[in-house]
Amino acid sequence: MPNSFGKLFQITTWGESHGPAIGVVVDGCPPGLPLAAEEIQAELDRRRPGQSDIVTPRKEEDRVEILSGIFEGRTTGTPISMLVRNADQRPGAYDEMRDKFRPSHADFTYQAKFGLRDHRGGGRSSARETVGRVAAGAIAKKILALGGSVGGPGGATGRASGIEIRAYLTNVHDIAVPAGALEAFPTLAEVEATAVRCPHLPTAEKMIERIKAVRSEGDSVGGVIECRVRGVPVGLGEPVFDRLEADLAKAMLSLPATKGFELGSGFAGARMRGSEHNDIFESRAGRVRTVTNRSGGTQGGISNGEEIVFRVAFKPTATILQRQPTVDVSGAATELIGRGRHDPCVVPRAVPIVEAMAALVLLDHWMRHAAQNQTFTF
Amino acid sequence: MPNSFGKLFQITTWGESHGPAIGVVVDGCPPGLPLAAEEIQAELDRRRPGQSDIVTPRKEEDRVEILSGIFEGRTTGTPISMLVRNADQRPGAYDEMRDKFRPSHADFTYQAKFGLRDHRGGGRSSARETVGRVAAGAIAKKILALGGSVGGPGGATGRASGIEIRAYLTNVHDIAVPAGALEAFPTLAEVEATAVRCPHLPTAEKMIERIKAVRSEGDSVGGVIECRVRGVPVGLGEPVFDRLEADLAKAMLSLPATKGFELGSGFAGARMRGSEHNDIFESRAGRVRTVTNRSGGTQGGISNGEEIVFRVAFKPTATILQRQPTVDVSGAATELIGRGRHDPCVVPRAVPIVEAMAALVLLDHWMRHAAQNQTFTF
Amino acid sequence: MPNSFGKLFQITTWGESHGPAIGVVVDGCPPGLPLAAEEIQAELDRRRPGQSDIVTPRKEEDRVEILSGIFEGRTTGTPISMLVRNADQRPGAYDEMRDKFRPSHADFTYQAKFGLRDHRGGGRSSARETVGRVAAGAIAKKILALGGSVGGPGGATGRASGIEIRAYLTNVHDIAVPAGALEAFPTLAEVEATAVRCPHLPTAEKMIERIKAVRSEGDSVGGVIECRVRGVPVGLGEPVFDRLEADLAKAMLSLPATKGFELGSGFAGARMRGSEHNDIFESRAGRVRTVTNRSGGTQGGISNGEEIVFRVAFKPTATILQRQPTVDVSGAATELIGRGRHDPCVVPRAVPIVEAMAALVLLDHWMRHAAQNQTFTF
Amino acid sequence: MPNSFGKLFQITTWGESHGPAIGVVVDGCPPGLPLAAEEIQAELDRRRPGQSDIVTPRKEEDRVEILSGIFEGRTTGTPISMLVRNADQRPGAYDEMRDKFRPSHADFTYQAKFGLRDHRGGGRSSARETVGRVAAGAIAKKILALGGSVGGPGGATGRASGIEIRAYLTNVHDIAVPAGALEAFPTLAEVEATAVRCPHLPTAEKMIERIKAVRSEGDSVGGVIECRVRGVPVGLGEPVFDRLEADLAKAMLSLPATKGFELGSGFAGARMRGSEHNDIFESRAGRVRTVTNRSGGTQGGISNGEEIVFRVAFKPTATILQRQPTVDVSGAATELIGRGRHDPCVVPRAVPIVEAMAALVLLDHWMRHAAQNQTFTF
Repeated sequence: MPNSFGKLFQITTWGESHGPAIGVVVDGCPPGLPLAAEEIQAELDRRRPGQSDIVTPRKEEDRVEILSGIFEGRTTGTPISMLVRNADQRPGAYDEMRDKFRPSHADFTYQAKFGLRDHRGGGRSSARETVGRVAAGAIAKKILALGGSVGGPGGATGRASGIEIRAYLTNVHDIAVPAGALEAFPTLAEVEATAVRCPHLPTAEKMIERIKAVRSEGDSVGGVIECRVRGVPVGLGEPVFDRLEADLAKAMLSLPATKGFELGSGFAGARMRGSEHNDIFESRAGRVRTVTNRSGGTQGGISNGEEIVFRVAFKPTATILQRQPTVDVSGAATELIGRGRHDPCVVPRAVPIVEAMAALVLLDHWMRHAAQNQTFTF
Repeated sequence: MPNSFGKLFQITTWGESHGPAIGVVVDGCPPGLPLAAEEIQAELDRRRPGQSDIVTPRKEEDRVEILSGIFEGRTTGTPISMLVRNADQRPGAYDEMRDKFRPSHADFTYQAKFGLRDHRGGGRSSARETVGRVAAGAIAKKILALGGSVGGPGGATGRASGIEIRAYLTNVHDIAVPAGALEAFPTLAEVEATAVRCPHLPTAEKMIERIKAVRSEGDSVGGVIECRVRGVPVGLGEPVFDRLEADLAKAMLSLPATKGFELGSGFAGARMRGSEHNDIFESRAGRVRTVTNRSGGTQGGISNGEEIVFRVAFKPTATILQRQPTVDVSGAATELIGRGRHDPCVVPRAVPIVEAMAALVLLDHWMRHAAQNQTFTF
Repeated sequence: MPNSFGKLFQITTWGESHGPAIGVVVDGCPPGLPLAAEEIQAELDRRRPGQSDIVTPRKEEDRVEILSGIFEGRTTGTPISMLVRNADQRPGAYDEMRDKFRPSHADFTYQAKFGLRDHRGGGRSSARETVGRVAAGAIAKKILALGGSVGGPGGATGRASGIEIRAYLTNVHDIAVPAGALEAFPTLAEVEATAVRCPHLPTAEKMIERIKAVRSEGDSVGGVIECRVRGVPVGLGEPVFDRLEADLAKAMLSLPATKGFELGSGFAGARMRGSEHNDIFESRAGRVRTVTNRSGGTQGGISNGEEIVFRVAFKPTATILQRQPTVDVSGAATELIGRGRHDPCVVPRAVPIVEAMAALVLLDHWMRHAAQNQTFTF
Repeated sequence: MPNSFGKLFQITTWGESHGPAIGVVVDGCPPGLPLAAEEIQAELDRRRPGQSDIVTPRKEEDRVEILSGIFEGRTTGTPISMLVRNADQRPGAYDEMRDKFRPSHADFTYQAKFGLRDHRGGGRSSARETVGRVAAGAIAKKILALGGSVGGPGGATGRASGIEIRAYLTNVHDIAVPAGALEAFPTLAEVEATAVRCPHLPTAEKMIERIKAVRSEGDSVGGVIECRVRGVPVGLGEPVFDRLEADLAKAMLSLPATKGFELGSGFAGARMRGSEHNDIFESRAGRVRTVTNRSGGTQGGISNGEEIVFRVAFKPTATILQRQPTVDVSGAATELIGRGRHDPCVVPRAVPIVEAMAALVLLDHWMRHAAQNQTFTF
């Protein structure tokens, strides 16, 4: 269903930006996992409004409440229901949007599709919906970090250690991390060191400066997030339609404000020759490895044990504090000025969301792989 | 399941490159559609090997056989099973691949995941698998072209006319269609005018030249396909996870050799400001329209009635006729030279495949929209 | 996923008997439906504990809280999240069950499957889980009662009026409604006239007497619910696997304590000859009708416009207030006496649950039918 | 989708009774399984027409052709496509059915739902569709018989041995196996000893006699199949909706001509008291076992390690060689006499079909259990 994601580790999100609450149900979680609300909260705090001076000042503590699926500190294998109450609602701030369609928002399409909409703050189309994704993703991340007994008839893995997922900004507007500046896998501390979540400090400073500058003009900017995943066992991904990169692409394009996805060499790879692009195999430390990683960690839709590397493009925030022409629900010309409390650049707060979605995809595929390939031995 | 795609108009493909046959089952097709094998065949002929002097010379007529679901020339609403016999098999040509992993192919990952693989011509990972997608997509394209009774509580559509899908090459290696050269919706004849399927003739000629040049060097090149869809009613797409662009992204990244997807402004959009990027609404011919189309035809994951525009990056063909180092199944270093009959550039033959996948996504979403929004009136 | 039901009108339930709350998320609800919490509450009150002197005295008001998906009194097409707080928790009453397996309960199987369990009141396996089903079913029932624009290429329906679902008890222990005593479709008032929900009054009285008698002995009894549905359009049901009766059977056997399902003639039909069993077609009031209805309202898995009639067998409540031998989690022999507050016969409170599940199946199939058969006209 | 069954071991069947062929695609099969066409054929031969003098004389060899998914005698983990050509077609025999609706057949409902139908031999609604189920079920049965590494955090199983599924007739018309006569698990040889597939010989003889008698009168009879499964590990089944018995019920009610399903005590259980019905736990041979098995092998929807026992009611064959009134497609009164070659009692040939469906359900649930409970250890 449209509000569910995943096949075996499945989440269902619900809730509107200015309704009473927003939440998620996680179905299929392995039992026995030690899990505390604080672990969920830590991830929610990374996407929370008001966390720094370059994001929206909306005041939401986003305290998670766990309603089911945990008993005496461990998951029971039954659905985990979590919710966050919406606190800082100023629905009056959106009265103008009841009848007017904000440019490049979902107001018009929701109205046309459903015949009515909760106009307050974007309702269901608000990025606030991702609260549930981040809460569920926190569980998936924890399981992946602990690792598991991946195996398979072809000795699908040689890795018992866990999976680590790291997303960060490489671009804001026309500011980009210099080529080759981030070869090492960034630490979480490096990413979290600045409000913009770019682990290359000189670039981070320029990004913050730019975001403040456009904000002062009532404008907004877009950016790019890169996500790298290491420790992934060989063998995850289910061809032909549920290739690992296909499900990652869907996960990322299901996020608000995303316009593109690329894996490994991406669009630049289209400008290369095969002799440049091919990843040569070699034996290293007893495992089959590739010398380069233009493939981005998958071949034929299945993880090959190298780092998974992908990038996601985010458009500039549609809400700007400038006067824009538009139409109202009757189709008549009008204009509006963005109000409310918005991020001049959504990308820094999207970092934990991208990680959450990546974790959901990987865990689901791990469980799918295990079901087909580890259950029976012939 | 991994070999099925779509929720209401669902296809399941099966078959290996050098097995006896390859095919597809289509479930959920609306009944009463007049359908002849020739209509399927016409699309298969567009992806067929040997169709021009810049593609693989593998000799496959790819004659489709319809085994069920059609009665007296019309679909019956029951599953449509179609198959194509594999004719020009030269399994001996692949003996070397039994034990060696071809760089940037799926040999290693299939072996690791499943413990064994049909090594002949890539087996299931061969792009030959897309025969079934194109056959099924031909049906979806026909239905979309005929159009239907899209509606909804919000007057989701004003279009009774059909949907037209047009894909074509914009890039091969470093050759690109000049900016602004393809503003008009290209005709099918323009696309099919050259073997490379680029409707901008001067560019097409350069592309063909380049492909022949790299082929003569035993090398390969990548490229980019742009796909545009017009006549799409307002309202298709199911937030939050099954956004129209999310399902398109998944569809495209499920194709062999793809490395990236972008919608509308795409990665370039990440370098823009909100004030540049926003698509202003206006009333035109009695409908709500946008002045620009940086959104690429969707807002909030739902079609807004503008052209859907997306691009897909394809890497260069992994098989090159050059000596490459690699490892064998035991992990020992070895080398191999690509043999077999391969496309120096897969992108021209991928055009009908991209169209097929786009058609499958759109039809499925149309049916989903109708189920929720057109069945009951309150 | 295991805690979700339905394909287009999909529900996901969550919650444990003695956790903080229990709830449901409904995805796919048609937009624009006027819906008030009171309408949900009315159905919940029918399954609520403590509603009469023959059911469990557990004190639960079961007040529903709607958290999303409704705006200004109408459904918006987005997920409807509903929860009920658990109030009358006496977890201490279940201390003994922490280590002992109650006979014919799910204690042992949950422990074996998941390695741990919330033992308080059965945790997830408690019939309290059905609160969410009834809340969701109330919405489905309302939509079905309003009716819709069912159609299809074959003129699938001639009925614009709504669908009415009526369940009631025909059997408690060895007490049964006399053959032929319930030919007319019972009214809701007739069903609700007695605490036992059997519309045949003389039988209802005997049933109540029997339930009180077994309760006084610390024992329990089973029973049978019959459910009839009228106003069903011709054409609902999706062969070959998703036949209407197949999905009804699954829905009913997914309820706690159920042991059997039969449609129309059921097991008695197996003892008949074809010449007795066949339902002869005739024209009546301009429609194709059958003279008899041994088929029970479907043929080939598709509704034929006659009443849908099915029966569900419920076993006696497993919890009895008698001493029973059993084993503990270590496998050692022990014994226990049922405590807690239980229904001596669960069947009367199961009536609204059966109706809810029937409504969910029918609405889902109606939407599926419409998607394939009403969207396109050729 | 309606023609697919199973979540992880998924089958999709296709084909009409008098089309060119009928078949199935199996997706999700574990790789490495040795599999020969003869093993599939053996099961198909058990459901084949013309196998004895009490079934239809339609001449179909039903030779299976495997088109994909097997390489060098082993499954590869990719889709297994199998088909059987329809040989003995006498479409002319069905000319009368083009316009007339056969009583208690699916002619009317298919016509109403889809607007057209392949009337020849019932088209898609023919029991010939089950060829694909039996072919797929043969694979599932083989995997289950070999057994696997079932485990889980709760030590979900103590059984490494395989699962054995045995179905057989207990009733034909009013002839029934005497109570208590089949306590031991019947052998395959005992079941196959007679054409009627009842392992109680004296009863089998009476059944055959009865079937011949009704056939001589141009009539038909129904019957009941009991199915027992032993060696099932503890822990299979996914509450709350995908309880093992819920999926078994759906599987059985998805078969043509079925009218009822019951598990363990079934409808008789509804007439019992809790003190009689409860299955007391005890320790036996180091495992938790029940003294009785009224539960029929599951508790709370999860297998408890005891025999799974269920029964399926089949109505008498709708086609009888007697004159019956009916209506034609215009609704006008007419009559018809059954022609064609039909089974006077479908139940004996349904035995391998019931076994196939049971195998599909169990294997799918085994894989689902493993995915959630065996992949990660905390």
